Amino acid sequence: MVEAPQTEEGWFALHDFRSIDWDAWRDAPERERERAIEEGKRFLRHREQVADADEGDSGLFSVLGHKADLLFVHFRPSLDDLSSIERRFEDTALAGFTERTTSYVSVTEVSGYVSDAYFEEGPEEVDAGLRRYIEGKLTPEIPDDEYVCFYPMSKRRGEEYNWYDLDFEDRADLMAGHGEVGKEYAGKIKQVIASSVGFEGHEWGVTLFGSDPTDIKDIVYEMRFDPASSRYGEFGEFYIGRRFPPADLGAYLAG
Amino acid sequence: MVEAPQTEEGWFALHDFRSIDWDAWRDAPERERERAIEEGKRFLRHREQVADADEGDSGLFSVLGHKADLLFVHFRPSLDDLSSIERRFEDTALAGFTERTTSYVSVTEVSGYVSDAYFEEGPEEVDAGLRRYIEGKLTPEIPDDEYVCFYPMSKRRGEEYNWYDLDFEDRADLMAGHGEVGKEYAGKIKQVIASSVGFEGHEWGVTLFGSDPTDIKDIVYEMRFDPASSRYGEFGEFYIGRRFPPADLGAYLAG
Amino acid sequence: MVEAPQTEEGWFALHDFRSIDWDAWRDAPERERERAIEEGKRFLRHREQVADADEGDSGLFSVLGHKADLLFVHFRPSLDDLSSIERRFEDTALAGFTERTTSYVSVTEVSGYVSDAYFEEGPEEVDAGLRRYIEGKLTPEIPDDEYVCFYPMSKRRGEEYNWYDLDFEDRADLMAGHGEVGKEYAGKIKQVIASSVGFEGHEWGVTLFGSDPTDIKDIVYEMRFDPASSRYGEFGEFYIGRRFPPADLGAYLAG
Amino acid sequence: MVEAPQTEEGWFALHDFRSIDWDAWRDAPERERERAIEEGKRFLRHREQVADADEGDSGLFSVLGHKADLLFVHFRPSLDDLSSIERRFEDTALAGFTERTTSYVSVTEVSGYVSDAYFEEGPEEVDAGLRRYIEGKLTPEIPDDEYVCFYPMSKRRGEEYNWYDLDFEDRADLMAGHGEVGKEYAGKIKQVIASSVGFEGHEWGVTLFGSDPTDIKDIVYEMRFDPASSRYGEFGEFYIGRRFPPADLGAYLAG
Amino acid sequence: MVEAPQTEEGWFALHDFRSIDWDAWRDAPERERERAIEEGKRFLRHREQVADADEGDSGLFSVLGHKADLLFVHFRPSLDDLSSIERRFEDTALAGFTERTTSYVSVTEVSGYVSDAYFEEGPEEVDAGLRRYIEGKLTPEIPDDEYVCFYPMSKRRGEEYNWYDLDFEDRADLMAGHGEVGKEYAGKIKQVIASSVGFEGHEWGVTLFGSDPTDIKDIVYEMRFDPASSRYGEFGEFYIGRRFPPADLGAYLAG
Repeated sequence: MVEAPQTEEGWFALHDFRSIDWDAWRDAPERERERAIEEGKRFLRHREQVADADEGDSGLFSVLGHKADLLFVHFRPSLDDLSSIERRFEDTALAGFTERTTSYVSVTEVSGYVSDAYFEEGPEEVDAGLRRYIEGKLTPEIPDDEYVCFYPMSKRRGEEYNWYDLDFEDRADLMAGHGEVGKEYAGKIKQVIASSVGFEGHEWGVTLFGSDPTDIKDIVYEMRFDPASSRYGEFGEFYIGRRFPPADLGAYLAG
Repeated sequence: MVEAPQTEEGWFALHDFRSIDWDAWRDAPERERERAIEEGKRFLRHREQVADADEGDSGLFSVLGHKADLLFVHFRPSLDDLSSIERRFEDTALAGFTERTTSYVSVTEVSGYVSDAYFEEGPEEVDAGLRRYIEGKLTPEIPDDEYVCFYPMSKRRGEEYNWYDLDFEDRADLMAGHGEVGKEYAGKIKQVIASSVGFEGHEWGVTLFGSDPTDIKDIVYEMRFDPASSRYGEFGEFYIGRRFPPADLGAYLAG
Repeated sequence: MVEAPQTEEGWFALHDFRSIDWDAWRDAPERERERAIEEGKRFLRHREQVADADEGDSGLFSVLGHKADLLFVHFRPSLDDLSSIERRFEDTALAGFTERTTSYVSVTEVSGYVSDAYFEEGPEEVDAGLRRYIEGKLTPEIPDDEYVCFYPMSKRRGEEYNWYDLDFEDRADLMAGHGEVGKEYAGKIKQVIASSVGFEGHEWGVTLFGSDPTDIKDIVYEMRFDPASSRYGEFGEFYIGRRFPPADLGAYLAG
Repeated sequence: MVEAPQTEEGWFALHDFRSIDWDAWRDAPERERERAIEEGKRFLRHREQVADADEGDSGLFSVLGHKADLLFVHFRPSLDDLSSIERRFEDTALAGFTERTTSYVSVTEVSGYVSDAYFEEGPEEVDAGLRRYIEGKLTPEIPDDEYVCFYPMSKRRGEEYNWYDLDFEDRADLMAGHGEVGKEYAGKIKQVIASSVGFEGHEWGVTLFGSDPTDIKDIVYEMRFDPASSRYGEFGEFYIGRRFPPADLGAYLAG
Repeated sequence: MVEAPQTEEGWFALHDFRSIDWDAWRDAPERERERAIEEGKRFLRHREQVADADEGDSGLFSVLGHKADLLFVHFRPSLDDLSSIERRFEDTALAGFTERTTSYVSVTEVSGYVSDAYFEEGPEEVDAGLRRYIEGKLTPEIPDDEYVCFYPMSKRRGEEYNWYDLDFEDRADLMAGHGEVGKEYAGKIKQVIASSVGFEGHEWGVTLFGSDPTDIKDIVYEMRFDPASSRYGEFGEFYIGRRFPPADLGAYLAG
């Protein structure tokens, strides 16, 4: 049996996709709409200030197309925090105008492919820059006013190309090449990788943030030519959207 | 034709996944909510005390994400017990606030891969520890206040990697290696394996219990590198949740 | 082109899966429930007595899990008989409390794999036991108070393992080996094989009856190791349930 | 690049599958039912007389099982005719008791596999029998009181067996062998082949008519052993039903 | 790692598929229908005149079959423009009679396969004809009164045929051959290719316009024999429809 990479986990993540029941919204009396917007804003501000937990981050995004209208992204220290957030939202009048189209549960993760030393010799033995990099991966901040792309992925276990049959070194090399592509987009694209092994059918949830949606297209396209993806990547559905402040919820719903 | 393993069966299992109709819940008068909570609690306490059958176990779990809100796990001596439980629940006011999103029917099973002697020479011929181990597998207890992971799986019948074409010995070796990974998590993860051959599209339902959800992620991830999984495992959807006592049902629904 | 087997057809089969609208049932006034039960019982007794056609058989089963609550199995001499039964049921008050989750249309079939002589030389040329065996396959009776398992299947047309590319003799050998496994379960499991080629996406519907659900699991599991299944079988969803008399419909619905 | 066959197109086809909302039908007042039947009959008679276009044909079929209750088949000279028919039906009271479960858009087609000369030298250069055969394929009549089978299909583009990688001659040979099987059923089965390339996910819609449903099963089964199907065919869902005259609509709905 | 092609992006595209709730439409009072038509027309004229953004184009199409009734195609300079259009439409009374069945988000794209010089030496270094060709691809106009075909596609990453494993030159050769087929249809078919990498599960959305739907069938069929498609193309669902002016919306809905 080949060796599994060591991993360290950070915050748990909930990606909560909602579509708006526009027929109900169109027909609702002004007073009900106002209440929904108010309760939605209060819920969201509370989450964005992380008033419900010791630490974490939350953000609201509009989503293009029929797959969803809204995406709530929540990072929190525990699954229990996320479970509570789910149910708190259902308690708002805004929830009554939405339907959950899909969701994704995962936990941010750094693995031995990133740095052997960090895991073998301990965090103190690696330089401060790498430590900060890893900490940033485990406790990610959601950038303001940026486009978001989310997709689930797994590693292929084909009869010829089987990721889980490769030696650790081969996998580490492939991941290093993959990382090189990512580095070209430093400053343009921020990436959050979270494991969903044991939580979802796919193995990881990937969230990309960037101020230009063509950068998002470009990084995903370029990485697709990288053997770690071209031979070993299996992708689920993709979602594209843009962050907006809770204060703009009313304007968003007004069309 | 290669040899099928011998098997011994224990309790039948029903995994019953329900989503809550939050819109109906939000709009329901207090009195109706209270009645739903009361009837739900009574139903659940009755099941947890196994007042409906000679033996077995039942537990209630909250589930993360859109796939379900609640999971009821029931182990009982017969399929008829489970059929009756399904219908009894539908008779409660709580059921009216839920929708069944999916379910899983299976029977706990120990097979010849675990111990040839147990099957060939009889249970009396193996040591008491192994007998107790097997009995524990066939009549599993649901641990308190633990996270739960459930997923269905099958063995691959690919054109190159075909589990059902392997000799018994090769399969037994692969299962033994698989078991070694499991042993590393002894004390952290409790595993219930139940066959759904003839009952469901997938061949087994796997239920993992653990007090730390990252242990669940770790064991599933590590096992994925084991050839029994990497070459021969086919997995369905994964579900993650946490047990809670029926007494907390009202608090759960309050958000 | 390799040779297709000769076939003889018997009764057409309809497997009609229904889920119960438990919310509507819970809320319905007693009078409406009673009427639904009465009309359901009358419909079912009529079918079980085959009062609607020259010959055939019908049976009612409870089904475990979310895939369905009830399964009606009807065997009749013509597709028109089955079409009429479908619509007659929709005319009952019971139908109003059910939703059709799926169904399966097929025709019982015996093929040249069973006996070359029967097809080449004629039914009179084979011994009476074989004739009776074949007749039993074409006009199957539904046993009382037994568990039922239903699943659709097809033969694989993979790039390496392609059933439809094999010589008749190779297929006949594989089917004979498959039959050997079946014979081990004689007296325990009764099997109805019906072709759905031209009627459904899958090629056959298999219905197993047995008084012990672990026998059902065992035969399906053991057959999976047989090359006719392990290399050439493609399976759809599986359903498990138990027959009950129409007279018990009220008790069933009461939970 | 290998050569695509030449093609000639005839009528466009719409297969319109509808399920009946039996709950609404059961509960509707007699007057509404009568109006629905009347408007349905008028719509259907009008279509069967092709009063809406220069030429074509239309037919109504009952369908077995949960996939649909009714199938309307329309052949017309243009897509616009079919679009208009769709919307005209929605204007009837009958439409209010139906739900569209699926549909299929295609255009009847004859290709160079049938006759090189027809395409290379022109229709006048082939004998009158072949010309009539081709014309019959392009402007098909729907036979009275016959069973119908419909299914979509595509040609496989597998890594080993790739239809679109074969030389024209190899494809023509395979199609000729396929045609031989079809000829055995002359007089029993009438076949309409219509291309849906560019219109639907599958590449062709196949409609079979026959007075005995076991002939339908037999031809589909026998063809599955033909290499054009066994190695290169990919099939979608299958539907089975029977034609009935619009005048019997009331009787059909009465059960 | 092989080289990804360079790309230039133009307008973003939204394909918005809607089905009409014909039951609600049939039952709506005349006044409500008129209002829906009026608001729909106003919305559409506004979009077709691109009164909502600096530049772009919009068009309305009827769609055949159950997959949708209407298709709105919008090209705009930014994703934000498209998000706003989505929500503006939901604000019309017409939206209340429609349901979104699917949608597609993409961005028009020209890549290095078309012209190395354009990307390596700059737009000024290529001749004016090529510059105009590329500009036309990036800012496409929607032709009047034409049939439309839409489908999503991806390049195969099979174990044997893996597009993303090919050298740039091999891919460029395959794309050039593909382009040759397209040129045969110059004047008959207009093609819009837009990347959905990072936005959708499939990698490109293809929109074809033509005045004869059999030309659409022919180009898709002929291209399927081209190795770029036959070995490397993976296709999603296909949709076929026809453009009509907003002024005809009332006539369209009248059947």
